[in-house]
Amino acid sequence: MKLTIKSLPSLVLIAVMFTACNSSGTSNGNRGALASTAAEKVYVAPGEHDEYYAFFSGGYSGNLTVYGLPSGRMFKEIPVFSQFPTNGYGYSEETKPMLNTSHGFVPWDDLHHPDISQTNGKLDGRWIFVNGNNTPRIARIDLKTFETEEIIEVPNSAGNHSSSFITENTEYVVAGTRFSVPVPQQDISIKEYKGHFKGALSFISVEPETGRMNMKFQVMMPGFNYDLSHPGRGKSHGWFFFTTYNTEEASTLLEVNASQNDKDFIAAINWKKIEEYVNNGGGTKMPANYAHNVYEHATHGAKSTMLKEVLTVDPTEVPGAVFFLPTPKSPHGCDVDPTGEYIIGNGKLSADLTVHSFDKMIAAIEAKKFDGEAYGIPVLKFEDVLAGQVKSGGLGPLHTEFDGKGNAYTTFFISSELVKWNVETREVIDRQPNYYSVGHVMIPGGNSAAPFGKYAVAMNKITKDRYLPTGPELEHSAQLFDISGDKMELLLDFPTHGEPHYAAGIPAEILAPKSQKIYRLEDNKHPFAVLNGEDTRIERNGNEVHVYMSMIRSHFTPDNIEGIKVGDKVYFHITNHEQDFDVPHGFAMIGANNAELLIMPGQTKTLVWEPKQVGVWPFYCTDFCSALHQEMQGYVRVSPANSNIEPSWSLGE
Amino acid sequence: MKLTIKSLPSLVLIAVMFTACNSSGTSNGNRGALASTAAEKVYVAPGEHDEYYAFFSGGYSGNLTVYGLPSGRMFKEIPVFSQFPTNGYGYSEETKPMLNTSHGFVPWDDLHHPDISQTNGKLDGRWIFVNGNNTPRIARIDLKTFETEEIIEVPNSAGNHSSSFITENTEYVVAGTRFSVPVPQQDISIKEYKGHFKGALSFISVEPETGRMNMKFQVMMPGFNYDLSHPGRGKSHGWFFFTTYNTEEASTLLEVNASQNDKDFIAAINWKKIEEYVNNGGGTKMPANYAHNVYEHATHGAKSTMLKEVLTVDPTEVPGAVFFLPTPKSPHGCDVDPTGEYIIGNGKLSADLTVHSFDKMIAAIEAKKFDGEAYGIPVLKFEDVLAGQVKSGGLGPLHTEFDGKGNAYTTFFISSELVKWNVETREVIDRQPNYYSVGHVMIPGGNSAAPFGKYAVAMNKITKDRYLPTGPELEHSAQLFDISGDKMELLLDFPTHGEPHYAAGIPAEILAPKSQKIYRLEDNKHPFAVLNGEDTRIERNGNEVHVYMSMIRSHFTPDNIEGIKVGDKVYFHITNHEQDFDVPHGFAMIGANNAELLIMPGQTKTLVWEPKQVGVWPFYCTDFCSALHQEMQGYVRVSPANSNIEPSWSLGE
Repeated sequence: MKLTIKSLPSLVLIAVMFTACNSSGTSNGNRGALASTAAEKVYVAPGEHDEYYAFFSGGYSGNLTVYGLPSGRMFKEIPVFSQFPTNGYGYSEETKPMLNTSHGFVPWDDLHHPDISQTNGKLDGRWIFVNGNNTPRIARIDLKTFETEEIIEVPNSAGNHSSSFITENTEYVVAGTRFSVPVPQQDISIKEYKGHFKGALSFISVEPETGRMNMKFQVMMPGFNYDLSHPGRGKSHGWFFFTTYNTEEASTLLEVNASQNDKDFIAAINWKKIEEYVNNGGGTKMPANYAHNVYEHATHGAKSTMLKEVLTVDPTEVPGAVFFLPTPKSPHGCDVDPTGEYIIGNGKLSADLTVHSFDKMIAAIEAKKFDGEAYGIPVLKFEDVLAGQVKSGGLGPLHTEFDGKGNAYTTFFISSELVKWNVETREVIDRQPNYYSVGHVMIPGGNSAAPFGKYAVAMNKITKDRYLPTGPELEHSAQLFDISGDKMELLLDFPTHGEPHYAAGIPAEILAPKSQKIYRLEDNKHPFAVLNGEDTRIERNGNEVHVYMSMIRSHFTPDNIEGIKVGDKVYFHITNHEQDFDVPHGFAMIGANNAELLIMPGQTKTLVWEPKQVGVWPFYCTDFCSALHQEMQGYVRVSPANSNIEPSWSLGE
Repeated sequence: MKLTIKSLPSLVLIAVMFTACNSSGTSNGNRGALASTAAEKVYVAPGEHDEYYAFFSGGYSGNLTVYGLPSGRMFKEIPVFSQFPTNGYGYSEETKPMLNTSHGFVPWDDLHHPDISQTNGKLDGRWIFVNGNNTPRIARIDLKTFETEEIIEVPNSAGNHSSSFITENTEYVVAGTRFSVPVPQQDISIKEYKGHFKGALSFISVEPETGRMNMKFQVMMPGFNYDLSHPGRGKSHGWFFFTTYNTEEASTLLEVNASQNDKDFIAAINWKKIEEYVNNGGGTKMPANYAHNVYEHATHGAKSTMLKEVLTVDPTEVPGAVFFLPTPKSPHGCDVDPTGEYIIGNGKLSADLTVHSFDKMIAAIEAKKFDGEAYGIPVLKFEDVLAGQVKSGGLGPLHTEFDGKGNAYTTFFISSELVKWNVETREVIDRQPNYYSVGHVMIPGGNSAAPFGKYAVAMNKITKDRYLPTGPELEHSAQLFDISGDKMELLLDFPTHGEPHYAAGIPAEILAPKSQKIYRLEDNKHPFAVLNGEDTRIERNGNEVHVYMSMIRSHFTPDNIEGIKVGDKVYFHITNHEQDFDVPHGFAMIGANNAELLIMPGQTKTLVWEPKQVGVWPFYCTDFCSALHQEMQGYVRVSPANSNIEPSWSLGE
């Protein structure tokens, strides 16, 4: 159904129209069928909706961005690991605990790989998981509210890069360290790296109903670098695959010293076997210190807990659980096709792609055909597990996704191109240049058993001249391809916000109907909420003053406050009494030293202000909310510290 | 000239291609002439460039975003008043001083109105000025580097809203307080508002060559609210116009109490007369405490100075300098047409627009035909200054821009529409609905003597169903209109990042050729820069350790560091030795508690790390910079506080 809005709206009509428009997310096919040019293919007319959501990692922004496909328009930035002045995330009292870690408050991170929750190998659109790369963490974002609900730190890790990928029923979200480190951390020379450092691969269980995460176990692997990972699916469900590099275990000048071996490994982990082992009491508990932060929608508040223990597993103690598949050369991407049969290792210093066969791997394991071992872990023979190689003709393969129609799409950084090839025959079908130096590629559902093979998005590392110049610092750039035909067709360049390392796409029809519009006031359990007008008040407790405030178009209650003194710590607990969709109010206190708040309908948030100067200081709404928005303001009088003035206020509702 | 890139690039070719592509910013006319559908009109094909830059304020994001028109793609977010984890602005040692204010470090603000520098009333594209609304500040952004170069705080102000607009030769950037406050601030009751509060209108001079700002004088006006402002131009150059509301001087329940008067005022300020007055020794110096922060490109560092004095002017002491023009009713926008003759007051609670005549105002002043005074300031007679009214048929007019062809475009918030009318005849020509509840409108150059009347962008306050839903919190939405014909044609909806209060547009051909690509290493005057490989080193000074580090694809020098101890304060001073366009490197230290750094070619930045735990901790590059980016890493060994270990490092270049 296609819906175009033509009539002149009045404010009264908006609510009615929204109901009608809600279904326009399903208008996919029509427009596509009619479109003839690239311009028409990417154009989403006013009043129509995009066909797909695409969640792009922001890399060093620490946040996640939400785009529409095919338009390439950015709909939202979801703060995850970084402070976000726009809505006060990481500044407001309710959200500050989300950024707690074992080494204190960390205002930022480097976010890499989003993965959407699955049921039976298919995207279910309940949550999206992302990893913090620097301070090793995994976050879970609720896809009803598009808010970060939970962050768990990953102990014994450093550079949480081969993360966060989920198993086909979202049993686990898996996180692997990129850097190996001493476990436990200790004061040893860097020269002692070889043989003394460990790489932790973490399996974090996900509670099926709530999504709540729990650090189930860590597999303590040899001191290689663990670069990327993907789950087995279908017949290989129960296994997880990780690329390794620096099997040389160099600790300096890695660009030379970690590129010596002709083959590194893909590590195959039978997590079902290890799960059974730990469920039967296997593994070793070791002391660890890591944060688990949970945001509760009912209280609109986050709580941070420090965990003290982690269960570790020595892979040599679980026979049949871990194997190494030799893979040329410093493989980066580690991708599994929708059937679960093929495990593709993209040797980033190699021209050819290595395609391993799951069936052959199992046969070799059963036949115990090993080529020695590494730190007690059996190494399979390359030729025993190889399905074949793709003679790509490209250089610097990084990542592969799938269209669900038997084709794979591999990015080549050095030759700067996207190459389409047949998974079974391993023949190259098509190639298209990328501008410039592509990293990841994303096909909606491309990391699941059931991809939606209409569009592919290339995420490029170099932008240069693709857009109007903006000084030395540029946004990165994505390119959208139509992959519905035999040949890929470049449709659109669009800039991305931050550095997208990866993205996850999902059809709008799965996600859009679930999206929450408001927080219901009746569900508001914030301890300092003002649910009725008569509860607005001010309470002093020593130097602490609590202002219980409500806001509704176009008024703060109270709007005149006296009796605040220099040296006080003033908590503004503000409840937005609106119950209409898209009527946030903001709160800014002139002279406040922390961020403003953006408060959604039905929500309560708290801003702390420590006034330093005597005077009369205004506050105001920062979100243009009505014709009388500019009148939505008030004043606070600040008296000297030694004043005897008592708290007073005027204008309850 | 139109340029489309078709050939497969290699890394070697990129530099050559960029040179060729640079001119594609001028391909405006061609594509427009061929386009027939809205889709084709907004489509900028891969390899082509947009015709216009549009700088959107981010509102409560505190930052400025850069879009292309007609594509609606966001090319960049420029951090101004808010911390920006993406590149470490407001976290790195070099940029933290930019966010200093008289009441300490403020990590955020509410950014409202961008205005591009002018010469002879025409956009010259050297700088863009923006205002901080909450902590009253004006910032200047350099349009060669797209970086914030200078921020000056505005004393005696609270809610710096009628800002930041510039005079036609960028003599001044003007900032008016929205809220009136006691001047100087003092402990008086809010009930004493009327007659005791003042509204400061600040004239900040701009040094013609460098753009350096200086707080020249403040006009201390009656205690009204000063909402928006615009400069005179052409014949009215030398004057500045400010809308006022709350001439009732209410301090509570403003949505009722500030809406009592049928007419408020536009304040007309003859700033040339006041400039002459202060240049001849007029005005009163008063103590004030406000910050002036300057970023030096050569040192890559910001310096914050606290100023202690401001020159204030009592308007009643400069006869002939300040007048009030009665204007119905709570006027919001205050817009001056390209000829400088018409001053338009958008009475936000009125259906009609009030168009004042500059000539009639001058005649009335010369004839001394006053209708009394307000706090000693002469009030002109409404009918003596009125050119006429526009019977718009809309409700809730907010803002007006111009196309340079004799037409004005006014937004109506309540009736949610954009209305085109003839400036001379004041007849309505066309109207188009906005989805939903439009605030500002922007036409490139629309606030200058020479607008570029091809596109208009409506910035809407309510988004609702315009895009795929993203939970309770939505981006705001813009709508692009083709205004080249008699009728406006809606082309595109696109989301905006933050809350755009206003935007400023400029043709790409003015700006693009000036854009800087790198920082030259030979110009690097950072006191801790490492310009030669042999200068990389570590120096200990008590508990302070300075690491002088260089980075180039794909290596940090040094990459192994020992001798750091718990309790040290480690300064990483890192110089990016690249001299190619678009090869930034990032730096992330595992376990650091402040943001990462993104370092542009030729630039030096500093990250402070206070290690808290013994161990070996990796660091890495966060920007995917080459095929061996994942190998661009190193380790720091942290020993116990009482260790005798001496600083050591390995691998100079």
